Amino acid sequence: MSAAKTAPAVSPLAPTHVPEMPEIAGVRLATAAAGIRYEGRTDVLLALMDKGTTVAGVFTTSKCASAPVEWCRGILKRGQAQALVVNSGNANAFTGKTGRSSTALTARIAAKAVGCTTSDIFLASTGVIGEPLDATKFDGVLGTLAETAGPGGWMDAARAIMTTDTFPKVATATVKLGKAKVTINGMAKGAGMIAPDMATMLSFVFTDAPIAAPALQALLKAGVGHTFNAVTIDGDTSTSDTLLAFATGAAAAHGAPKITKANDIRLKAFVKAFNAVLADLAEQVARDGEGARKLVEILVEGATSDKSARKIAMSIANSPLVKTAIAGEDANWGRVVMAVGKAGEPADRDKLSIAFNGIRVASKGARDPSYDETEVSNAMKNPKIQIKVSLGLGKGRDRVLTCDLTKEYIAINGDYRS
Amino acid sequence: MSAAKTAPAVSPLAPTHVPEMPEIAGVRLATAAAGIRYEGRTDVLLALMDKGTTVAGVFTTSKCASAPVEWCRGILKRGQAQALVVNSGNANAFTGKTGRSSTALTARIAAKAVGCTTSDIFLASTGVIGEPLDATKFDGVLGTLAETAGPGGWMDAARAIMTTDTFPKVATATVKLGKAKVTINGMAKGAGMIAPDMATMLSFVFTDAPIAAPALQALLKAGVGHTFNAVTIDGDTSTSDTLLAFATGAAAAHGAPKITKANDIRLKAFVKAFNAVLADLAEQVARDGEGARKLVEILVEGATSDKSARKIAMSIANSPLVKTAIAGEDANWGRVVMAVGKAGEPADRDKLSIAFNGIRVASKGARDPSYDETEVSNAMKNPKIQIKVSLGLGKGRDRVLTCDLTKEYIAINGDYRS
Repeated sequence: MSAAKTAPAVSPLAPTHVPEMPEIAGVRLATAAAGIRYEGRTDVLLALMDKGTTVAGVFTTSKCASAPVEWCRGILKRGQAQALVVNSGNANAFTGKTGRSSTALTARIAAKAVGCTTSDIFLASTGVIGEPLDATKFDGVLGTLAETAGPGGWMDAARAIMTTDTFPKVATATVKLGKAKVTINGMAKGAGMIAPDMATMLSFVFTDAPIAAPALQALLKAGVGHTFNAVTIDGDTSTSDTLLAFATGAAAAHGAPKITKANDIRLKAFVKAFNAVLADLAEQVARDGEGARKLVEILVEGATSDKSARKIAMSIANSPLVKTAIAGEDANWGRVVMAVGKAGEPADRDKLSIAFNGIRVASKGARDPSYDETEVSNAMKNPKIQIKVSLGLGKGRDRVLTCDLTKEYIAINGDYRS
Repeated sequence: MSAAKTAPAVSPLAPTHVPEMPEIAGVRLATAAAGIRYEGRTDVLLALMDKGTTVAGVFTTSKCASAPVEWCRGILKRGQAQALVVNSGNANAFTGKTGRSSTALTARIAAKAVGCTTSDIFLASTGVIGEPLDATKFDGVLGTLAETAGPGGWMDAARAIMTTDTFPKVATATVKLGKAKVTINGMAKGAGMIAPDMATMLSFVFTDAPIAAPALQALLKAGVGHTFNAVTIDGDTSTSDTLLAFATGAAAAHGAPKITKANDIRLKAFVKAFNAVLADLAEQVARDGEGARKLVEILVEGATSDKSARKIAMSIANSPLVKTAIAGEDANWGRVVMAVGKAGEPADRDKLSIAFNGIRVASKGARDPSYDETEVSNAMKNPKIQIKVSLGLGKGRDRVLTCDLTKEYIAINGDYRS
């Protein structure tokens, strides 16, 4: 359908520091150019995990999920993984029966290459939707990758899963589990697709900590609430969003305790580090939002509940009028009031206060008497904008990340596909 | 805050035919430049209605409604009206106590000018929010308007309530009620504000039919469901949205029957005409959406219920990815699938069919075999785009109007306010 576009410049919000990615015992990586969509571009990642690796996953809430998402959901309950195959260029979404055959064939090719059963193979695809994915392209490629896979190459892996992300997204943490050091590595791709059809979020997190699948699933589910689920670019939901966590358990060999319950007190430091990796990756997704020039943090406090605060924060974060105002460096608190009002959650106009980057612009139902337009205008030039809304009703609070809505977003998404 | 911008060019989607607006017995209009925000621009409308006029209203669902909306809600239950005062330039929204004083003062000035009680005075304001509205500016002005008001001047009235609408919006119908001819006139302003803070929708409908207030309220409430409530520009909800209907009853003098119940069988033709006026005005609002270059009609059929169809249609209509694709004249059905999927309503990917302007592009969970990209691309050049989604699950259906999302929307809403 579409010709390759010139690569976009790196987002001005890209992190200035990229961490050195350590190895994770029990994980080996390899990438290749399989020609899924574009010639001469790395588009397949194979991650091999040692036998005994546990897995957890969360997926898109879309009612029209892609074939790979259905595949992963189907095998997740076993809680075991030996390989992850990710391709970019084609999402294998809305491809009907062909899509299901394609995932099954990919899994068979991978299982043969790795030497395991198909239900140990996790799949993720990102790219154009509605186009049949020719899984025979993986034949041969996955065999070679399985042979050459090694413990390094994390940045290459993060690059292989990109579509039109403007930078690879990685995060890492090391932390004590019992007396043993364990490592957590993560990668993500986000919202920066031009030619294809939507902004799919894929993320994969790996650790050598020995954590049973049900416990890992509980950690992941709890962890996404304030990280990946608290990020929005345009309110649109991909049919392919996938976040998988793999725990090889290799750290047990040097003394890490085997964890079977998510509420195990020995997990405390691990959970903190795990959530920090998720939060780091999620923030990088917002920083690479399509056309983004501003990273926007929405803080809501004083709501009647945390859930109510989340709805209000999302209403603000997804409001085109709020997002365009920020693109225009305009501290347009009137639009924030509008977005609070439309959320449908308890709010009392006359108790509402709003601050931009710490400067209170509105309080108790009217413009703040101390409002200094020049001071606020200068603050709005900052590449990071914090909007804090105090509802004055209760103790509910939440935090959501988003980006501004610029002409570049329209250019990226409104370009002719063909 | 903001300097006046140069007037935008008329929307390319503006109706080519503007109706002659007849007089309505019992209604007199007058407009003036009160200098609410800009000098030398008509910004106040006074509509005088004969004693005995009934009124109905529907308002924004925002939890942070403006002071004039609160005022109208407060007096609506009496069901009587003698005047409507509308100003553009200042929405009197999020102005706290000052806002309430301002509406009360405006009503007092109007009541004195008209010679009625304040609870017969309906108010609507549109424009910048958070700025105190100096109601003393109405002093003198409303007195003069009350003296000069006449039965004509409907186009002037429609112009006086505009903010940055690119064309005045009027509609009219004449219909038999019993054996008498009755007339329905309506005007609206929509989503085309630059300097202020949101796209407020105001609409006022007048008739000489003798309809009791509770019946008129029931008609209006039923009428908005498939007209004004089925239009979305960007999913944002103004704090000031107001739709009022006034029935002077003057047609009773030449034989129109007095109607007290909305289900009166004699109302059949009237209801049809009334709804057609609402639908016409609502479509004009979509045609004047900020930066709009395409009028987009979303048809959803085969849903499990009409309510479910509405949610799916709105999910499509408010999707930035769908709207930017249409701006790019791209029949990107993948994004439509995405929007169906994220609506959270029952949908079976493998039963889904999608057509653009009558050309089926996807069916039964995959690209339609007969899909001809050139044919579809040509169809997408049409200024009116119809997206039809068939879910194949039940008999639920709905229709929603919207417009595309263009760089002009960003320019309009992302311009520096100060």
